[in-house]
Amino acid sequence: MPTPIPKTLHSITAPRGFRAAGLTCGIKPSRRPDLALIAADKPCRAAAVFTTNQITGAPVIVGQQHLRGGRIQAIVCNSGIANVATGDAGLANAQRMCRAAASALGCTADQILPSSTGVIGQKLPIEKITSGIKKVADRLAAGPKADADAARAIMTTDTRPKAARRRVCIGKHDVTLGGIAKGAGMIAPNMATMLAFITTDADIALPLMRRALRDAVNADASFNRLSIDSDTSTSDTVALLAGGMADAPPIRSRGTNYRRFADALTDLCTDLAYQIVSDGEGVTRVIRCTVLDASTDAAALQIARTVVESPLVKTAVHGGDPNWGRIAMAVGRAGVKLNPSDLEIRIGPIAVLRRGCPTSFDLAKVGRLMNKDEVAITVRLGRGLGRGQMLGADLSRQYVTINADYHT
Amino acid sequence: MPTPIPKTLHSITAPRGFRAAGLTCGIKPSRRPDLALIAADKPCRAAAVFTTNQITGAPVIVGQQHLRGGRIQAIVCNSGIANVATGDAGLANAQRMCRAAASALGCTADQILPSSTGVIGQKLPIEKITSGIKKVADRLAAGPKADADAARAIMTTDTRPKAARRRVCIGKHDVTLGGIAKGAGMIAPNMATMLAFITTDADIALPLMRRALRDAVNADASFNRLSIDSDTSTSDTVALLAGGMADAPPIRSRGTNYRRFADALTDLCTDLAYQIVSDGEGVTRVIRCTVLDASTDAAALQIARTVVESPLVKTAVHGGDPNWGRIAMAVGRAGVKLNPSDLEIRIGPIAVLRRGCPTSFDLAKVGRLMNKDEVAITVRLGRGLGRGQMLGADLSRQYVTINADYHT
Repeated sequence: MPTPIPKTLHSITAPRGFRAAGLTCGIKPSRRPDLALIAADKPCRAAAVFTTNQITGAPVIVGQQHLRGGRIQAIVCNSGIANVATGDAGLANAQRMCRAAASALGCTADQILPSSTGVIGQKLPIEKITSGIKKVADRLAAGPKADADAARAIMTTDTRPKAARRRVCIGKHDVTLGGIAKGAGMIAPNMATMLAFITTDADIALPLMRRALRDAVNADASFNRLSIDSDTSTSDTVALLAGGMADAPPIRSRGTNYRRFADALTDLCTDLAYQIVSDGEGVTRVIRCTVLDASTDAAALQIARTVVESPLVKTAVHGGDPNWGRIAMAVGRAGVKLNPSDLEIRIGPIAVLRRGCPTSFDLAKVGRLMNKDEVAITVRLGRGLGRGQMLGADLSRQYVTINADYHT
Repeated sequence: MPTPIPKTLHSITAPRGFRAAGLTCGIKPSRRPDLALIAADKPCRAAAVFTTNQITGAPVIVGQQHLRGGRIQAIVCNSGIANVATGDAGLANAQRMCRAAASALGCTADQILPSSTGVIGQKLPIEKITSGIKKVADRLAAGPKADADAARAIMTTDTRPKAARRRVCIGKHDVTLGGIAKGAGMIAPNMATMLAFITTDADIALPLMRRALRDAVNADASFNRLSIDSDTSTSDTVALLAGGMADAPPIRSRGTNYRRFADALTDLCTDLAYQIVSDGEGVTRVIRCTVLDASTDAAALQIARTVVESPLVKTAVHGGDPNWGRIAMAVGRAGVKLNPSDLEIRIGPIAVLRRGCPTSFDLAKVGRLMNKDEVAITVRLGRGLGRGQMLGADLSRQYVTINADYHT
């Protein structure tokens, strides 16, 4: 298992060959930090996973083009305005951000991954951003604290920065992975949701990197397995840069070293994903729904998603109420064929429904399990070997307040 | 167009040959009415549409069997307990309700449609119900007021009874349709959602009846086109009984008379559906989302459903905020292929997004449109002739309060 490292230490600059910085360039009326730069000493192999929303931000379109080459030297990210639904002017602004960063770092514009998160439909204040990029590049050498500055500069409605790192031994040498992320919740008026930027000093072949990232993003309780409010943002991006500056041997095939790297990456992603969901808008509890014995993994996942997205399950969890009937209802409406008389539902370790009928469970005991920070729901279908797990969150008055009281 | 009739008049007994009654038999701790009987003078042709949830209530299973014969003389319905997840004992209880009603009315048990709505996982107090059925059968002749008693006796978390009727001219004679319904919201702990019982004195062939009902349920803004909280109950039922006691000529083919009847039925269903959605849990505004120019009707409907179920759109509507960015986000994540630069979004008559970019609309004017009882959102995709319309509702703190503060 990879070793978790205390989060107070640095994250994205923990792997050798990376620097980071963040500052306020003046996009947010609050004057909070809104511009981050993560730069490698030289062009890195890069892989990324983007939003599946068909209304995509301009930086996602430009970023996808730049990723085709497979080499990226830096990520430049602003928060406050998402540069979505901005037409050709938006594309031009995303390209200008890349040119400004390239000029400050001495690379080419297509080696920059641009990213923006925040309000939809507004234009970027591009002069503020390009002059900010010069300043933030000057700060790159500021040391470990700059990781936290970068993590803070990509925040929108997050209440705290999110960071993690992992170390793993590859051929007797340490390889390090570091990541920062922002969440989860689309607030005033339309904040783009999820960004995660991951760096590593591993030397890993591009196809393997792409595979490892895709698997890590789709692992149990990772980025593609969480749903705070079922709304997919227009800007979601998870990017991985691998600089190869560690002393460890290169990873060129899917052997033990690949497996170790991939496990550490998955572990890092699920750590960041958990930080995102537990800091979701108005979230007071995390829901972890595991579906077992389904006919396929896809069927299991479909049911787990329906359970964690059900408003009635979410409100029951918010109220700390062991309302298994709502869970059964959500399982039944997921659009997956099942035999109700084989159905088993557990809350924590306690079966509340078995063979389709309620058990005589201890209500007070299950009530206590529903009042923890994380509520575990397990559903068994008795049909096959398919399994899946999703993370979700409760639905609170606070969520409604945050999202209803804003005015455009 | 069929003529609407004031709702203060009777509904399900308006067609010739039907009687109805409701009373308190003692299922609900509140002592509110909880048992309804709708009876025809003789066995009727009958068609019904049931929930698609795979965890179905025992009465739905028994009702589906009884419907196979195509002849029903009465509907017996209790509220308070849904008789869901109750195993073989639940099936036996649903059958006992049928036998009790059949014995009181002098028909066979398979000519009774049983229905139950309320808490999941509890057993019916069957002795109270069977003795209640005798009493409610005695009251059948009580006159017009009994319609309202029946409409009230099927309520769970509804704040008001729902009823409507329509009259339509078939071959120079009037045919009448009447309906009652209950909504929408699954509260303490798991109320089954939607029931609608419709009667008519038309003489219409069974296959035509089934077609007309299916079309009416799937029409724009009808029962299958509304989503209050995206949770499908385990007991949803829409049943239509046709006694043929009007003087109008029989409807045996899909000509003008069928068309008139079907239109009146659709009109009645959309009236009841609107009553349900506007009385949903914590609902303060109705959302009507129309999607036009999609590649197919299914694609249009998928987008309309995603918009009205989006928590971010629902909270924006609750706050009366013209937040078109959230609507665009929901359109983009609906899983339907589209070209963002063809997208148009209107709030009421005002275009807020055209060719994928925001217009310079009058914010105050659109804000006023967002603060009405019904908010109309129109999405144009510019891809084809597909269209669809869904009704939804806003998401309020009151919804969370109702559904989180209950304790099992």
